[in-house]
Amino acid sequence: MRLSRYFLPVLKETPAEAQIASHRLMLRAGMIKQATAGIYSWLPLGFKVLRKLENIVHEEQVRAGHIPMLMPTLQSADLWRESGRYDDYGAEMLRVTDRHGRDMLYGPTNEELITDIFRAHVGSYKDLPLTLYHIQWKFRDEVRPRFGVMRGREFFMKDGYNFDLTKEDALHAYNRHMVSYLRTYERMGLQAIPMRADSGPIGGDDTHEFLVLADTGESEVFYDSAITDLTLGDRVVDYNSREECEAIVREWTTPYARTDETHDEAKFNAIPEVRRKSSRGIEVGQIFYFGTKYSEPMRATVQGPDGKSVPVHMGSHGIGVSRLVGAIIEASHDDKGIIWPEGVTPYHAGIVNLKQGDPEADAACEAIYASLMALGLEPLYDDRDERAGGKFATMDLIGLPWWITVGPRGLKNGVVELTSRRTGESEELPPEQAVEKLALAYAGHVLRPAL
Amino acid sequence: MRLSRYFLPVLKETPAEAQIASHRLMLRAGMIKQATAGIYSWLPLGFKVLRKLENIVHEEQVRAGHIPMLMPTLQSADLWRESGRYDDYGAEMLRVTDRHGRDMLYGPTNEELITDIFRAHVGSYKDLPLTLYHIQWKFRDEVRPRFGVMRGREFFMKDGYNFDLTKEDALHAYNRHMVSYLRTYERMGLQAIPMRADSGPIGGDDTHEFLVLADTGESEVFYDSAITDLTLGDRVVDYNSREECEAIVREWTTPYARTDETHDEAKFNAIPEVRRKSSRGIEVGQIFYFGTKYSEPMRATVQGPDGKSVPVHMGSHGIGVSRLVGAIIEASHDDKGIIWPEGVTPYHAGIVNLKQGDPEADAACEAIYASLMALGLEPLYDDRDERAGGKFATMDLIGLPWWITVGPRGLKNGVVELTSRRTGESEELPPEQAVEKLALAYAGHVLRPAL
Repeated sequence: MRLSRYFLPVLKETPAEAQIASHRLMLRAGMIKQATAGIYSWLPLGFKVLRKLENIVHEEQVRAGHIPMLMPTLQSADLWRESGRYDDYGAEMLRVTDRHGRDMLYGPTNEELITDIFRAHVGSYKDLPLTLYHIQWKFRDEVRPRFGVMRGREFFMKDGYNFDLTKEDALHAYNRHMVSYLRTYERMGLQAIPMRADSGPIGGDDTHEFLVLADTGESEVFYDSAITDLTLGDRVVDYNSREECEAIVREWTTPYARTDETHDEAKFNAIPEVRRKSSRGIEVGQIFYFGTKYSEPMRATVQGPDGKSVPVHMGSHGIGVSRLVGAIIEASHDDKGIIWPEGVTPYHAGIVNLKQGDPEADAACEAIYASLMALGLEPLYDDRDERAGGKFATMDLIGLPWWITVGPRGLKNGVVELTSRRTGESEELPPEQAVEKLALAYAGHVLRPAL
Repeated sequence: MRLSRYFLPVLKETPAEAQIASHRLMLRAGMIKQATAGIYSWLPLGFKVLRKLENIVHEEQVRAGHIPMLMPTLQSADLWRESGRYDDYGAEMLRVTDRHGRDMLYGPTNEELITDIFRAHVGSYKDLPLTLYHIQWKFRDEVRPRFGVMRGREFFMKDGYNFDLTKEDALHAYNRHMVSYLRTYERMGLQAIPMRADSGPIGGDDTHEFLVLADTGESEVFYDSAITDLTLGDRVVDYNSREECEAIVREWTTPYARTDETHDEAKFNAIPEVRRKSSRGIEVGQIFYFGTKYSEPMRATVQGPDGKSVPVHMGSHGIGVSRLVGAIIEASHDDKGIIWPEGVTPYHAGIVNLKQGDPEADAACEAIYASLMALGLEPLYDDRDERAGGKFATMDLIGLPWWITVGPRGLKNGVVELTSRRTGESEELPPEQAVEKLALAYAGHVLRPAL
């Protein structure tokens, strides 16, 4: 993309309403614009990141054997009356009446609707196990929306639902979700720690939240620092193997890690003091096993191998996709702007032309642009007729992990400058070598989404 | 995908509520399930097609130089009061009140919101031309929703908006959109004819609808059969060239083609009788040039080269993405089921194992499965323990363009059977040759979306 043809409305001033870094930086980098309280338009740069996260979530869910579908945003109130949640949900649920006076609502979650689909179409244990998920806009009418997309009212979320014959099968689904979530966050450059949590309005016996450590987190968290050393790395996981999934879950849930809601002072104090950590955390996902809480009242049953009808064991599993954009920025930024991890950066590299209009500089930039595109990388070429200082400030602000600076002086010596946003370090290289370095930096990253 | 692990709830009976083929077939093929009147869940097979169409629309819009972003589903009523449309829109607009008593609405279209974004961020003619678009769920509270996704209440739509300094620039944007739409429909295997139309509630001077010929269309259309011979084929279009875009628009708008709304009997009768056709048509898109209709009341102005402030010239351009799923089926089906065009088929080929559990048949199917995957094709392998008749009926119903039948008898002679859904013809071939034929059939198709 050439910046002269893009729509990147960066702001020089810090918007007064933004209290936290991600909100401030997303506004300043031209990623979002508030449409009305707690509801945002995703400007091109923001949308590109959102779409990347969405694709990563899809890829990791499909890898785990979960099946994508899509439920609508508006639902009939009838199903929620059946589960008993219509009255329970309170003022956070946005209630709507259509032209015929029918009660509807903007879905804050989808347990009822998916259970209705399941009971209409599945009747035998032979069709299990089954995990369906979707990524769709949801609405929660927060009293006081704030922190930008971190606590918006209209938000983009992945929610998945497993249907199993037995509790054991459902716990395998639970474990499979935990592993797939760990992978998802790792690909996004995030460390998200699973912590035993309260079940809240979804209900259930077993639940973990995933928290990203950041000063601006809404929860206080307590953890054994041993957990922050864990990574999945290149491990190949067989999601059909109960043992493999369980082993990974055990690895991640053995070190102490809890939010203030479930914190146990005595257990925490049993950890060697040097590993005892407390911090703030941002919740970016949650998984639940809730057994037959919905399948019983809604009569979602299957015929078991013995011919008897039994309610299915269910769980639900969510990742806040739009919230993650903010969480990644909270975890990865500095005074100058955002620092995107390679896995989610909207563009892979910037190209800064120090002297737009100079035939040699222009030609060198075009050649680098073409080479990067040929590698499947997406460059953002700052081809505007602006001063170098402004171009560098934009690069720092929007936070692409790498950029290449091209100027007449360097070109005389056959070199360009490759800058790492994270370290701030630059090195002079012939253009081809700079391109090769970028190819290496992105080796192993999915350049084109599979879905 | 293996059918034993998929969720494909095909129905044997024809659902009573479905009046038209696409609605009937989408329900029977397990593509959708009604959530409530005019609102549908997209089951896995349906979602896969919807996502493919979405990606094609994105790719063709990006190719034309238009920039993707995303606006929210809910909007504040304030902007619509500013444009004067809040009261005009009538009962089709779904009005919502939030917990603080603020008037909101579920967007049926986005002229107001995009104009608000534009005026907040763009101030100079130097930032033009600019075309922004998004693909988002919309809502129109139809009195009598019917025909499945063809006339639903919650629907998925691409809407794009161009901002230009002059009428001439805006007309180039109009032409660019027409060309990109023609390409989009062609990639979907559709012939959609641009027809001069009425502007309706969007308003404007110049507008074309795109209509797909089908018996179940809501509009009566009259056209010169010469227009159905036109194709873009492999033409490479330079979207920056006014002349190229204009020439294509001229080519497609010279032959007579109008809906009953704008039909001109005298002009129609001037066509040689043999080329005079009338039919029914399904509207799948519409483009508008409306000048300063929104930019004036909403004060979306830029400073021109002479330093004077002028309202921008705008247009808006829509493609009904969810509706297209139905339109494609209306245009391409037979008594047995759907016949997907290669460009939009949810899976590229089926594999029918005639004797599941037979070691040789199973091994041959697995090998074909792996070969197709290695080519970037997505097979749907019917590995269920079912009778051949049921498997063939499912293949016919869900309409993949090709399938390979594998059975012990053929394997003894070293052959499998390759069947074309469109012609119904089968031929016996060694497995490798069947795979090669499929590779050829999909040559030139985008297998992985670029966005």
